[in-house]
Amino acid sequence: MSKFDYIENPHRRYNPLTGEWVLVSPHRSKRPWQGQVEKVIEDVRPSHDPKCFLCPGNDRIGGEKNPNYEDVYSFQNDFSALLQDTPKGKFEDGDLFKAESESGVCKVICFSPDHSLTVPEMKVENIRKVVDLWCKEYKELGDREDIGYVQIFENKGSIMGCSNPHPHGQIWASGLVPLETSKESETQKEYFEKHGRTMLLDYLNSELEKKERILAENDSFVALVPFWAVWPFETMIISKRAVSDLLELTDEERTDLADIYKKLTIMYDNLFEVSFAYSAGLHQAPTDGEEHPEWHLHMHFYPPLLRSASVKKFMVGYEMLGTPQRDITAEGAAKRLKDLSLQHYKQK
Amino acid sequence: MSKFDYIENPHRRYNPLTGEWVLVSPHRSKRPWQGQVEKVIEDVRPSHDPKCFLCPGNDRIGGEKNPNYEDVYSFQNDFSALLQDTPKGKFEDGDLFKAESESGVCKVICFSPDHSLTVPEMKVENIRKVVDLWCKEYKELGDREDIGYVQIFENKGSIMGCSNPHPHGQIWASGLVPLETSKESETQKEYFEKHGRTMLLDYLNSELEKKERILAENDSFVALVPFWAVWPFETMIISKRAVSDLLELTDEERTDLADIYKKLTIMYDNLFEVSFAYSAGLHQAPTDGEEHPEWHLHMHFYPPLLRSASVKKFMVGYEMLGTPQRDITAEGAAKRLKDLSLQHYKQK
Ligand SMILES: O=P(O)(O)O[C@H]1O[C@H](CO)[C@@H](O)[C@H](O)[C@H]1O
Ligand SMILES: O=P(O)(O)O[C@H]1O[C@H](CO)[C@@H](O)[C@H](O)[C@H]1O
Repeated sequence: MSKFDYIENPHRRYNPLTGEWVLVSPHRSKRPWQGQVEKVIEDVRPSHDPKCFLCPGNDRIGGEKNPNYEDVYSFQNDFSALLQDTPKGKFEDGDLFKAESESGVCKVICFSPDHSLTVPEMKVENIRKVVDLWCKEYKELGDREDIGYVQIFENKGSIMGCSNPHPHGQIWASGLVPLETSKESETQKEYFEKHGRTMLLDYLNSELEKKERILAENDSFVALVPFWAVWPFETMIISKRAVSDLLELTDEERTDLADIYKKLTIMYDNLFEVSFAYSAGLHQAPTDGEEHPEWHLHMHFYPPLLRSASVKKFMVGYEMLGTPQRDITAEGAAKRLKDLSLQHYKQK
Repeated sequence: MSKFDYIENPHRRYNPLTGEWVLVSPHRSKRPWQGQVEKVIEDVRPSHDPKCFLCPGNDRIGGEKNPNYEDVYSFQNDFSALLQDTPKGKFEDGDLFKAESESGVCKVICFSPDHSLTVPEMKVENIRKVVDLWCKEYKELGDREDIGYVQIFENKGSIMGCSNPHPHGQIWASGLVPLETSKESETQKEYFEKHGRTMLLDYLNSELEKKERILAENDSFVALVPFWAVWPFETMIISKRAVSDLLELTDEERTDLADIYKKLTIMYDNLFEVSFAYSAGLHQAPTDGEEHPEWHLHMHFYPPLLRSASVKKFMVGYEMLGTPQRDITAEGAAKRLKDLSLQHYKQK
């Protein structure tokens, strides 16, 4: 029997941030695809769409009118999943029936007044304004007594359930720390207590030595495919300095965050020469009033496409009932991404 | 401020099987949907499709020929994610880079020679043959030294990534216990040690008293919407007797499992009068050679549709980065399902 090699053989990999494993089947990308094929939408949009609820000056779905904003703009989601005035309370019936009221705030952030743009097509100086608004919202919401966690994210593309192509993101700020971040809180805390450094600082430094999974880099941030990626082209942006939230970033670092966000999403668009769908979001320290030296600011990108602009990876069946499974290695995905140009295909 | 009411107010609910919480936003189903709409495929198929890889007598994708099977048929997946001859081994570099080889067997189970059928349209006596084959495979695979868990599941519908409409399911049998079942192993063990009864026995008895979330029932099984459901119309089938795996079922119970599988999937099809997509699978005791009195056999159903035959729930953004979130209550979903006829809409 030959030697185990994680580039060739089926295996599982450990995700130290969640404490969970992922199944990797490197050989499986060879199987022919006969399943559902997504519509690839030709992405030519006007700069202003009179029917868009997010364009400046237009009426929103809830009846309000958007101001004629010139760069970025945030407002309360007209269909918030979390509400501010939820009565506090619990329901408990034995060990098996437990419910607790949950309150919070949901906001929408318009990234640009220009309906036709996406992050990879925006100028770094304009993405920087998005970063500044994130900082402002994280501070304002996080300072509130009733907000323990501020989740900033972007759903991009209709195959990610995004209902409006206008460049925008969301914030869901809740009293309690959500599931995924509470896993990361625990693992990072344990690591920090053991090593006196953040987990992602050590991880990033190892990756920078190994080089294999690094996609892009500037003075303050690195974009890479994590060793334990689940989605085919899953990536992370990690800050080089161990900062626990956005507010610790210097002026220069904020611009560098905008820069790496643009670089990574250009690579994504260039991969299949299509506006690349993903869910992305920042993970940072809870706003529960405690110090969180263990927390290391990072951003996750979870894109669903696998083989082409129209064939996605379905996380179903075994993934839902058993273990998340991927069909190409993190190294294979990194190799394909890092060889791509940093000039957007539409600008060529 | 009024009193907290989990039918009206946003809240989180505890899933005692996974130990995790789900966010419920009852008011949110009111939001208008402007996002992606799925193709609804007119589901008229021939009983035999000469191009189908699963029909009797046809050539398979791997080159082999299917026998002229008359009821059920299982074979090794031509594109298995788990392979038998994987060299054993580990890769470790510090705390942060860990991989372990994983081996196993992937099989496909054809439920019927008739290409046009689906479970809700099959006769109970024929579904019973599927149950018998599950039992046989669970025993044969589970008895092997190198198999610690046998995951039996069905992906149905192209929106669940199912690439062939021929009625079929899969088995992925692995050396290690997968992520989801290992969570359930832990919680069930803890409960059993504390109470001396299986968690799902107590849970089922409470639900049978409350009646609110019960969908269908026969002598041996109950179909219900679990209190902690994540997917809009997520359900479970639970055995009335605390059996830990399929092999403990009596002859009558096997038939009752076929019966409840049919009843539940008829309700599903009748909900939107469409062949209803889902991922479903059995959770039962690991086959690691140990006794598992804590394990209680059950089947999960995770269907993606939310509002209609063409609008699904997207588990993206907040769900991926934060906490799974649902837009209708378990009680609302149960009410809609249980009022449906047990006669299939196509037969009316
Ligand atoms: O095996 P299939 O039906 O080709 O593939 C489907 O089910 C598998 C097991 O749940 C998933 O890993 C695949 O992403 C999905 O497309
Ligand atoms: O808020 P949107 O973009 O309308 O909705 C989308 O994102 C939400 C937050 O991730 C999800 O809960 C929805 O399922 C999805 O369709």
